[in-house]
Amino acid sequence: MTAPISEQADKNAALAFPIILSVDTMGGDQGPAAVVAGCAISAKKNPDLGFILHGPADELERLVARRKGLAERCEIRDATGVVTMEDKPSHIVRNGKDTSMWSTVESVRAGEATVAVSCGNTGALMALSMIRLRKLPGVNRPAIAVLWPSRNPQGFNVMLDVGADVRADADDLLRFALMGASYARNGMDLARPRIGLLNVGTEEHKGRTELKEAYELIGEHADAADFDFVGFVEGGDIPGNVADVIVTDGFTGNVAIKTGEGTASLIGELLREAFKFSPLSRLAYLLAFTSMRRLRKRIDPRRNNGGVFLGLNGTVVKSHGSADATGVSSAIRLAAQLAELRFSDKLAARVAAAAQPGEKGDT
Amino acid sequence: MTAPISEQADKNAALAFPIILSVDTMGGDQGPAAVVAGCAISAKKNPDLGFILHGPADELERLVARRKGLAERCEIRDATGVVTMEDKPSHIVRNGKDTSMWSTVESVRAGEATVAVSCGNTGALMALSMIRLRKLPGVNRPAIAVLWPSRNPQGFNVMLDVGADVRADADDLLRFALMGASYARNGMDLARPRIGLLNVGTEEHKGRTELKEAYELIGEHADAADFDFVGFVEGGDIPGNVADVIVTDGFTGNVAIKTGEGTASLIGELLREAFKFSPLSRLAYLLAFTSMRRLRKRIDPRRNNGGVFLGLNGTVVKSHGSADATGVSSAIRLAAQLAELRFSDKLAARVAAAAQPGEKGDT
Repeated sequence: MTAPISEQADKNAALAFPIILSVDTMGGDQGPAAVVAGCAISAKKNPDLGFILHGPADELERLVARRKGLAERCEIRDATGVVTMEDKPSHIVRNGKDTSMWSTVESVRAGEATVAVSCGNTGALMALSMIRLRKLPGVNRPAIAVLWPSRNPQGFNVMLDVGADVRADADDLLRFALMGASYARNGMDLARPRIGLLNVGTEEHKGRTELKEAYELIGEHADAADFDFVGFVEGGDIPGNVADVIVTDGFTGNVAIKTGEGTASLIGELLREAFKFSPLSRLAYLLAFTSMRRLRKRIDPRRNNGGVFLGLNGTVVKSHGSADATGVSSAIRLAAQLAELRFSDKLAARVAAAAQPGEKGDT
Repeated sequence: MTAPISEQADKNAALAFPIILSVDTMGGDQGPAAVVAGCAISAKKNPDLGFILHGPADELERLVARRKGLAERCEIRDATGVVTMEDKPSHIVRNGKDTSMWSTVESVRAGEATVAVSCGNTGALMALSMIRLRKLPGVNRPAIAVLWPSRNPQGFNVMLDVGADVRADADDLLRFALMGASYARNGMDLARPRIGLLNVGTEEHKGRTELKEAYELIGEHADAADFDFVGFVEGGDIPGNVADVIVTDGFTGNVAIKTGEGTASLIGELLREAFKFSPLSRLAYLLAFTSMRRLRKRIDPRRNNGGVFLGLNGTVVKSHGSADATGVSSAIRLAAQLAELRFSDKLAARVAAAAQPGEKGDT
């Protein structure tokens, strides 16, 4: 897990840092100030980081100048267009050349940066990434992978796809398993990750046809691709400890993570109300403050922020649209880790190996 | 919401109570003792209740005799066969005549009881209910509806389907909306429930084809069927306050509720750990005990136990397989409420009204 010095730095005269990230400062709910603040937090923690910031140059220069030591770590690329949450992906692909999001992806395409980070419109970011970075050979549908708090020793499971595409056939689900295994191996340092296929029951006779096919396909690839296939898992296993990687289509995965987030947020609200209820419970809150803060940190979505686009020539990290500085810095930490591990290259090698002739179900 | 005296009592000479429930005592993880204990709790709380208990007569007689006053409220039907969680539904439909589950459904079919309650295998219970009770005219796919803790004034949302079938087309989703509205109107006393259709984004251009069709269909029926259609909702809205009824297919719904349950259970565990962490946090727990107990009660799945099968000639309540006495009594309370409201008749009338000619998308 130690850092192979990236060769990116050579290509960029302005920024001589081992890891260069391309950051979209627009499109998030909290505007460029939160994004620049997130970069500042990450820059302090990791001296290897340099940033190419994309957005309105005037505003960015002012924001960067306010943070001590940040200006030397950043190069600013003026981009006046903004992709909004309402923009249709197809519209951005045709008309979005002036946007900060386009420019952000372009820096990865040009090899100036290793990983792109954006808080913007997920659909547009995926569409731009597919068009500009292109899919890896053998990948039909890219996927978005997230980390989800779980009972695992590492504290997180990987789940994919959580919304790149609303459909996935058996072969797509196999690619998701291969890509998810590679992500878990690199991102969580697991030699042989356990892969589970999300279904409504753990018995083999339940569920949809494509899931039965995927069950066979994934099982056949387990040994060659160095993962354990634990078979079908259920929604309750997403925060559980039977699998390290949960494979599903983007519709189901998206509903699942949003249901989980919503449930956690409702419980958090009710917990706050409970502690406010009486003088005794308010005192209790003070006494339990440290333990509660640790618990909150453990399940805080901001500390675990960033969906990774898998299956492209290049890595893109999608931060939550509502991310504040803490959330953005968490997405940047993830991007830096993936850049440092040269994750894109490793993933490409894995997927290419599995796409060799002799594989069943591959067209 | 006051009780129209049921006419069921007349049909059953042995049990002269206003509400007769048919209860499967086998098939739950905790065995017949927990089910009988749950009946005993409910019997004490509601003097109108009588039970037909299905299972091994010897054992049930012993269990019932131990509970003061319960014997007079129960009639026991000997059934030696047990449906296990591993049994395939198709096998039970062909060979399950001797099972307690079959006998339980049969009492509703024969009109001896108004509502059936079982903790057993969901797939088998749905298959038996479909075969023996038959679907309502106009209903292609029955659905399982659950109550889910939410920010609504009533504290719960209705979600369906959570697992009757892994697929649903646009017309099925319309029926789910009609049935869910009827359930919310009766079970939660909402004059004009708000219906949301589960999708991955709230914009109309996202999601699967059948969802776009369903969006149109449900919108067209809103006025005639007396509900508000709030359009697409996301996973985060299941515990939210934008809709009272969340409509989705059984695959997505099942994954969503299990993810929500799993997340809630993980947070509960982490919370217990946090309170155990230090002497101070243990003291805090004691001080916050009353508030915490109220919070636990609010989100305890046992207190909110029972999926209702909608779309059949008769009502079936599926209790959680792991239900203890508290869980069973909660499922019985729900069953009694639906029996008292003559929910089956009202639902049938609603679905029949919507199935009149002139309706689009209906074949």
